[in-house]
Amino acid sequence: MPELRKDPVTGRWVIISTERGKRPSDFGFQKVKPKDGFCPFCPGNEDKTPPEILAFRQDGSHRNGPGWRLRVVSNKFPALRVEGEIFREGVGLYDKMSGIGAHEVIIETPHHHESLATLAPKAFEEVLWSYRDRMLDLRRDTRLRYAMLFKNHGEAAGATLEHSHSQLIALPIVPHLVMEEMAGAREYFRYKERCIFCDIVRQELQQGERIVLENGEFIAIAPFASFSPFEVWVLPRRHSSFFEECQVHEIQSLSWIFQEALKRLEKALNFPPYNFTLHTTPFNERTLEYYHWHFEIIPKLTKFAGFEWGSGFFINPTPPEEAAKYLRELAP
Amino acid sequence: MPELRKDPVTGRWVIISTERGKRPSDFGFQKVKPKDGFCPFCPGNEDKTPPEILAFRQDGSHRNGPGWRLRVVSNKFPALRVEGEIFREGVGLYDKMSGIGAHEVIIETPHHHESLATLAPKAFEEVLWSYRDRMLDLRRDTRLRYAMLFKNHGEAAGATLEHSHSQLIALPIVPHLVMEEMAGAREYFRYKERCIFCDIVRQELQQGERIVLENGEFIAIAPFASFSPFEVWVLPRRHSSFFEECQVHEIQSLSWIFQEALKRLEKALNFPPYNFTLHTTPFNERTLEYYHWHFEIIPKLTKFAGFEWGSGFFINPTPPEEAAKYLRELAP
Repeated sequence: MPELRKDPVTGRWVIISTERGKRPSDFGFQKVKPKDGFCPFCPGNEDKTPPEILAFRQDGSHRNGPGWRLRVVSNKFPALRVEGEIFREGVGLYDKMSGIGAHEVIIETPHHHESLATLAPKAFEEVLWSYRDRMLDLRRDTRLRYAMLFKNHGEAAGATLEHSHSQLIALPIVPHLVMEEMAGAREYFRYKERCIFCDIVRQELQQGERIVLENGEFIAIAPFASFSPFEVWVLPRRHSSFFEECQVHEIQSLSWIFQEALKRLEKALNFPPYNFTLHTTPFNERTLEYYHWHFEIIPKLTKFAGFEWGSGFFINPTPPEEAAKYLRELAP
Repeated sequence: MPELRKDPVTGRWVIISTERGKRPSDFGFQKVKPKDGFCPFCPGNEDKTPPEILAFRQDGSHRNGPGWRLRVVSNKFPALRVEGEIFREGVGLYDKMSGIGAHEVIIETPHHHESLATLAPKAFEEVLWSYRDRMLDLRRDTRLRYAMLFKNHGEAAGATLEHSHSQLIALPIVPHLVMEEMAGAREYFRYKERCIFCDIVRQELQQGERIVLENGEFIAIAPFASFSPFEVWVLPRRHSSFFEECQVHEIQSLSWIFQEALKRLEKALNFPPYNFTLHTTPFNERTLEYYHWHFEIIPKLTKFAGFEWGSGFFINPTPPEEAAKYLRELAP
């Protein structure tokens, strides 16, 4: 019998279709594998990107030249513009505003054939440091309310350049899904006086069946109402509302669990395309008792179609308990 | 300068990226073109589908045999089960319920190479009649709260069988996006004492720039906050909360405008994959002053990736005013 499950934070329902339970080998997709050819993100082509905003470099190397381990640049075709005033305006019953914001690209490695999963542990950690640095810098711009950090890995997951990179879009408003998630978490807090994510961490550790990985500071789980097969969330065990306020030991600890989760997904699913997104508290909020940052990793294994677009309701052919068991038991 | 626009009903923002404004020929996708091969939906293969629930047939032809113009059958691999009791249950902080519902397939034509856009007008009208009949029948089942009617056209839009068909998934709950849309419309009504969709129809007719087609009973528009390029909505001009309560002359009038919109999308974009969904009032509601049924047609031209999944925020490279102008001016 299929099962309907409700995401406790957003209230979104999913159909867990236990009967057509799909195993890792049942998904058809194009394996992600970088090809050769000209790449604007490779060392030596620094002049093909806008100037760098941040870089981790070898001593003695020069800005906008080779010798970097990681580089952050503006997107050459930004979705939003940095310069200008925010204006809001009505047009009859409609509302619009100027498209002010930032759109940055984090080039995670100089090596065209590396992926986040194959990076040396130190290099992976530097990716997280760059995320933190950029968030801390962007939140000083009072025009901006939220920075959406995300990665598209593989063409099917929306990557247009294959050289490993993440992106950051800073927006003058708090996006819809973030507001919804925050509203759900706030409502739970009002009723229970506990953070819903802290409760999720506690319940998952007790039940164990959806745990993928854990260490002293973090857990990786297949969420109860996973909308996508092999969806994985990485959450801090201790309550924390802003990702960018992570301490050194937390970044180190996160680095291991996050990379290990990606490695296992690549091993289990044979290099799937995927997306991940950071969910964190909007810039203009204080520290919140009810909201708890986390990463959501979504392998791109199924096609979303009319039903999903019309209903916001998803059909997931792999129960998260099976996905978690599979990922948990993979030899490291 | 890119522009942020807010969907007046759901509150969802989109980035209308006016600078990289894409014309119809700029989108890369696989043209939808049926191939040959065995097809369970073709006449003569009626025993390859579950028994028919509804069919429009030639006089003298037999149930579950050839001679039909349109057939409705259960999905052979249903997402939900028809038989059983609804139970709701908690698991710690989580909620789940039994996966009861209906999953039906409307086979729109016996001809494998036809599409909705190429059907004879009478045949297109019969498709709408079948939608209405199935909705009226399903709403008598008090376990069901909502029926999501949708079509996936082309593999890239999620169609797994290419023979032209739509689907209907009837659910024991009202989906998330529908609730959100209804909540937005309700809030507007409370404030203005007018239906927001009626206001949209009025404003669009006055401004004219986003009108694609109109006739006495319906309008087709490129919505102000289109999240997808060449998105088209078809709305009744007169307030009406339930699609399934359409009268004869309304179905006839809808039939022309809906098919003409699909024809123009196919001509403008060279046979794109697309989805459409019906948005209508849940079964367990009365006639509502604030909610107004409509169809939403979404050509599948862009890939949604990490940013969209994390934020619910979309980047649309084609301003709806340009899309509407293009579609409006296409010679019929």
